[in-house]
Amino acid sequence: MSPADTGEGAGNTAYGKKPFKRSRSHFADRITADGRDGWPVEAGRYRLVVSRACPWASRALVVRRLLGLESALSLGVTDPIQDDRSWRFTLDPGGRDPVLGIRFLHEAYDKRETGYPGGVSVPAIVDVPSGELVTNDFQQITLDLSTEWKDHHRPGAPDLYPEALRDEIDEVAEGVYRDLNNGVYRAGFATGQEEYEKAYGDVFRRLDLLSERLRDQRYLVGDTLTEADIRLFTTLVRFDPVYHGHFKCNRNKLAGDPVLWAYVRDLYQTPGFGDTVDFDHIKRHYYGVHLGINPTGIVPAGPDLSGWHEPHHREQLGGRPFGDGTPPGPVPAAEEIPAAHRA
Amino acid sequence: MSPADTGEGAGNTAYGKKPFKRSRSHFADRITADGRDGWPVEAGRYRLVVSRACPWASRALVVRRLLGLESALSLGVTDPIQDDRSWRFTLDPGGRDPVLGIRFLHEAYDKRETGYPGGVSVPAIVDVPSGELVTNDFQQITLDLSTEWKDHHRPGAPDLYPEALRDEIDEVAEGVYRDLNNGVYRAGFATGQEEYEKAYGDVFRRLDLLSERLRDQRYLVGDTLTEADIRLFTTLVRFDPVYHGHFKCNRNKLAGDPVLWAYVRDLYQTPGFGDTVDFDHIKRHYYGVHLGINPTGIVPAGPDLSGWHEPHHREQLGGRPFGDGTPPGPVPAAEEIPAAHRA
Repeated sequence: MSPADTGEGAGNTAYGKKPFKRSRSHFADRITADGRDGWPVEAGRYRLVVSRACPWASRALVVRRLLGLESALSLGVTDPIQDDRSWRFTLDPGGRDPVLGIRFLHEAYDKRETGYPGGVSVPAIVDVPSGELVTNDFQQITLDLSTEWKDHHRPGAPDLYPEALRDEIDEVAEGVYRDLNNGVYRAGFATGQEEYEKAYGDVFRRLDLLSERLRDQRYLVGDTLTEADIRLFTTLVRFDPVYHGHFKCNRNKLAGDPVLWAYVRDLYQTPGFGDTVDFDHIKRHYYGVHLGINPTGIVPAGPDLSGWHEPHHREQLGGRPFGDGTPPGPVPAAEEIPAAHRA
Repeated sequence: MSPADTGEGAGNTAYGKKPFKRSRSHFADRITADGRDGWPVEAGRYRLVVSRACPWASRALVVRRLLGLESALSLGVTDPIQDDRSWRFTLDPGGRDPVLGIRFLHEAYDKRETGYPGGVSVPAIVDVPSGELVTNDFQQITLDLSTEWKDHHRPGAPDLYPEALRDEIDEVAEGVYRDLNNGVYRAGFATGQEEYEKAYGDVFRRLDLLSERLRDQRYLVGDTLTEADIRLFTTLVRFDPVYHGHFKCNRNKLAGDPVLWAYVRDLYQTPGFGDTVDFDHIKRHYYGVHLGINPTGIVPAGPDLSGWHEPHHREQLGGRPFGDGTPPGPVPAAEEIPAAHRA
């Protein structure tokens, strides 16, 4: 997550008296087919580091799955609970990422820039040979996976960022980012009633617009899955489990909006979406790390997740999820979400 | 509210390391028809002091309305936000209760017992001539209004505690108290994950039992409104606005259980129930006072309350809400809930 989401980052911004503001990504080098920033696309060279708790990192998880980049771009998964050294590889044997050999993500930051004073965020892509962080630019990473890593896409990979629709995708994603992806954080980390109510208004105004847009249309842009759906999905899937209660976005649950609830279940049930979602990591991160708004650190036992597999009937709206492509194959065994963490 | 609910009380118990435990009422004198405790029933002599935020005090508000005791037993309403001197009459002109002439409810406690070290709780009944607290025994107050104040009931008042059904009412109320009325507090004020999960389990097991019981039966006991319904109502009406998020009772909203959601709306729409409910006081109290679990003091803007007036169709189950009696008349003008505080 970008610094302002994390325990320490949020602590700096949200619990002071300034309104919540998301930090910009500091490391914005791009990994491209032509290698113009010094980082050419190359199978096996880079490692994507994520937290499965984080909506920004989870975008990259979905895109990587849909495009079949699992073998070209390996994956490191951090503990959902940061400590004062931020994201940790405590889930791995010996507490070290088995490929990078580091205990904390900040070690890759340090390798890249000595004494970098900013926050440590996911998603991050690390150059394995040098151990250096290449980028933590969550807005660009997924687009580059779609457009620069084409030579390594699986056969049948969908085009998630089709040229003809980019303007529309960007426009939709921008409103979703401002009011919803980031709006829920502005609500949750508000330090005053007025700041909170402004954010709450933005969140539900945007949800209502999206609900209207998706009533007769299966996906956000065009008739196939695109980057726009992925950016919306990773926020919606967290809405009832954390944003509704923990961030006080409680006008209604997503489950109370028939259109959005069916839309998000449709995506969840699509290979490449739900199979990246770890509800345990999500809940334990938000409730366990943001002690400024949940001092006991107690993690709610709800919500009931049984509804996520219910029929959504959205296929009646038509749409071709993968366009001329095909769904991704099964999740690599090493990346499977434990059954107890799934809906 | 009894001490353990209040900011200070909760602070003593909930934020320490002991499990949450509700204090017993210390002042348990009874106001009776025969005056055997020295407090005979007498119209105009006593004043009921409540917070409209408090589920325990709200039981007395409902019973007083249903029985038409408004003119016999006057009403003082405290500010929903306590300060370190507990319940305050800051809503009244000059910050003083116009009948008792006191600024804080604790003054009536002090009159009764010098240096009483316990918490100050509502509901409380104060003897107006002496200014002394008579009782804060929330479990007994409503029963006595039903059984000892009969001479002052309105014509057509229902029998809320009929002799033939008392054992059943008591039994139902006891389970509801343990698992639900008090269970939500045990969940919300838990200091550890295990303690919380135990309470959460109790809450939803009881809600499921109640939902089953109320599926084909309009009211909890017999075919009329009784004390059992009132004790359940004042917790259910707070469930979605506060217990679901603030106390982490989030398996599902009440609105997600068709039986209980219809049941509570049926009661809410019955004269004497919904017209005592101040959602503004409820939300501001819980979120504004329990800073140990909501440090920012920000009050959620949700939930959407528009559904409370929707048809519930429970009349199809039969039942005679007031038995051989009639509904209460309109709320006295001075006691009306402001429109902005209602559903």
